[in-house]
Amino acid sequence: MTLPQGYRYSALYAGIRKTSSPDLGLIVSDSQASAAGVFTRNLAQAAPVKLARAHLERSHGTARAIVVNAGNANCATRAGDATARASVNAVAQALGISATRVLPASTGVIGVELDATLITRHVPALVASLSPERFEDVARAMMTTDTVMKIAAEDAQLRAGRIAVAGMTKGAGMIHPNMATTLCFVLTDAVLSPAEVRDILRDGIETSFHRLSVDGDTSTNDTALLLANGASGAAPTRSERRMIADKVRAVLESLAAQIARDGEGARKRIVIHVSGARSNNEAVRIARAIANSPLVKTAIAGSDPNWGRILSAAGASGATFDPRKVNIGLQGVTVCRSGLAAPFSEPDVKRRLDEPECEIRFAIRGKGGGQARFWTCDFTEKYIEINASYRT
Amino acid sequence: MTLPQGYRYSALYAGIRKTSSPDLGLIVSDSQASAAGVFTRNLAQAAPVKLARAHLERSHGTARAIVVNAGNANCATRAGDATARASVNAVAQALGISATRVLPASTGVIGVELDATLITRHVPALVASLSPERFEDVARAMMTTDTVMKIAAEDAQLRAGRIAVAGMTKGAGMIHPNMATTLCFVLTDAVLSPAEVRDILRDGIETSFHRLSVDGDTSTNDTALLLANGASGAAPTRSERRMIADKVRAVLESLAAQIARDGEGARKRIVIHVSGARSNNEAVRIARAIANSPLVKTAIAGSDPNWGRILSAAGASGATFDPRKVNIGLQGVTVCRSGLAAPFSEPDVKRRLDEPECEIRFAIRGKGGGQARFWTCDFTEKYIEINASYRT
Repeated sequence: MTLPQGYRYSALYAGIRKTSSPDLGLIVSDSQASAAGVFTRNLAQAAPVKLARAHLERSHGTARAIVVNAGNANCATRAGDATARASVNAVAQALGISATRVLPASTGVIGVELDATLITRHVPALVASLSPERFEDVARAMMTTDTVMKIAAEDAQLRAGRIAVAGMTKGAGMIHPNMATTLCFVLTDAVLSPAEVRDILRDGIETSFHRLSVDGDTSTNDTALLLANGASGAAPTRSERRMIADKVRAVLESLAAQIARDGEGARKRIVIHVSGARSNNEAVRIARAIANSPLVKTAIAGSDPNWGRILSAAGASGATFDPRKVNIGLQGVTVCRSGLAAPFSEPDVKRRLDEPECEIRFAIRGKGGGQARFWTCDFTEKYIEINASYRT
Repeated sequence: MTLPQGYRYSALYAGIRKTSSPDLGLIVSDSQASAAGVFTRNLAQAAPVKLARAHLERSHGTARAIVVNAGNANCATRAGDATARASVNAVAQALGISATRVLPASTGVIGVELDATLITRHVPALVASLSPERFEDVARAMMTTDTVMKIAAEDAQLRAGRIAVAGMTKGAGMIHPNMATTLCFVLTDAVLSPAEVRDILRDGIETSFHRLSVDGDTSTNDTALLLANGASGAAPTRSERRMIADKVRAVLESLAAQIARDGEGARKRIVIHVSGARSNNEAVRIARAIANSPLVKTAIAGSDPNWGRILSAAGASGATFDPRKVNIGLQGVTVCRSGLAAPFSEPDVKRRLDEPECEIRFAIRGKGGGQARFWTCDFTEKYIEINASYRT
């Protein structure tokens, strides 16, 4: 995995979470980076979300560092703003940079006070152990109920030199609105302006994290950041900028897909393809309704080709289509044709649904060109077990 | 339980469901009844839904009989319309009435052909065993994953005589959009016009079944019917009509609450009270978002006073409010005040949440007068177990 140049990483256990695995991470760009963020639209926003957004505004889309903690969301807390500011100030001071160049992010329980000194007193050690090799340590430090670290990287040869893009994310618990928090940081050494970084991030999020049903109904802390520090020295041409955007998109899509694979208690990743809708927006609406249906998710968990639930979920999505023109495919087998049962071998489809990757195709015949791809995961007893006592 | 006069009931096992408990029911009014229905808004509508709606139109809001089956939704089936018509015709013929006076309803698996003869050949026996005493037999025949029969009744003394209202319903599986089907039949012997029956049903549904998150995103078969056959002979005054409407509402609310109590795998009923929203609609929106959040439902399952999830679900509901003005109460204990953690005894609230009835109060301070009450239930491993292999 080729990492972008000019970034250093560090992580340690600061005592924020109960188990003694690292819960505090720092990413530093050696030079000023163009930066952009996409944040939760929830009315209840955590202090670090508000501060990161304010810093990006005041710095006109630039940043030098990201400080992230797991174990506490620093949301709905009395000292929330002060704690976020104290953390950021400690990092800025230790690095000798402006506080507005530090972007904070937190994930964990809501409504429990986060002791700022847990972070501030560990900042010197965090800065002292910064290294270009410790990328994965930060990816691990922000895990909550994730079972695996989630990272992705791409690189590209430009005329002026080689650039790299690397990203890390933490899981959104079960992939469903209102569930756990998603954090996602993508770093590149490409030469890009703040406006370019903003556009590339927004476009990339649209077909990745916004197709994971984490957004729209977001958690209090959701944060995706893109930094481009130009350390490659390779200024892109216009067409090369598109290539860089594609690489960022590829990293974001890989990360989103990894989250779906690691949904809380999930045994299977589900990919939903919708085609023939009246618009891409309607396709997304249908796909999201299927992805969010507990009945569909439990059917997939049980390898049950119960396509009626898929049709019903789509029919209640608010999108407009003729159910008699719908074909539904499961794992490549057509189980519903023109809104009616298609002949298929139940044991065969059941066996195919035992795979860890399940594909649902929802195709509306006709002239509609609306398409969408959407990720989710199955819904198992384990999910209940994890979430019935998250705090205790 | 006082049943309304002039109705007879019958049920038997017709072989539609696999287990040999009654799956076919018939309700007959001895005289023509004013009738109205509220149906699913899903694009994918089952054949009996379409036929019942058409019959109510063609009969100008009158009916003589309801024929209901469990075990098969007769939805997304090739012969769906023909099967629904054949069932209705068989009943009409056996009773010597017009087919448009028979209202069909089905619940069960979607997309599996329903053999019409299973119903038609049992109609003579069904009619032969009609009795004014067999109300509960029909309530049992339409159960699917319900663990208990759900009925409710009210009566009232009018100046001109006594009237009774009795209703039966079947559970909506887990209480969540897109889940299983709800059927609900309410019968009265009050003297009411078709227009009055329609208004009373619509108003009553609004604060009962529409506060159960079953509607809005409804299943393919959801049907609620109200019949008033006037057999009491007691014509109501205007104020007595309001009293009758209140009795119907009480029956509907009792039935809705019984469904919440018997959600698939549910151990606890959850009642959500929202106050201080900008409007009643916004209050419903907040309440529905809380009710539909798997994170909230699993927290209640685990008796975990994790109010941050409640605040987050509300914040993503689309309603507008200031999170800093929110108080949240669990079982009468304030756990969040002004959007922040309130001091409370965790063991005490945990113990209170062990009760089979859990109350969530979400109060927004300020001038907003919007209120809503909403029912749901907790989310347990058992739900997954039930739904992972419903068909098999």
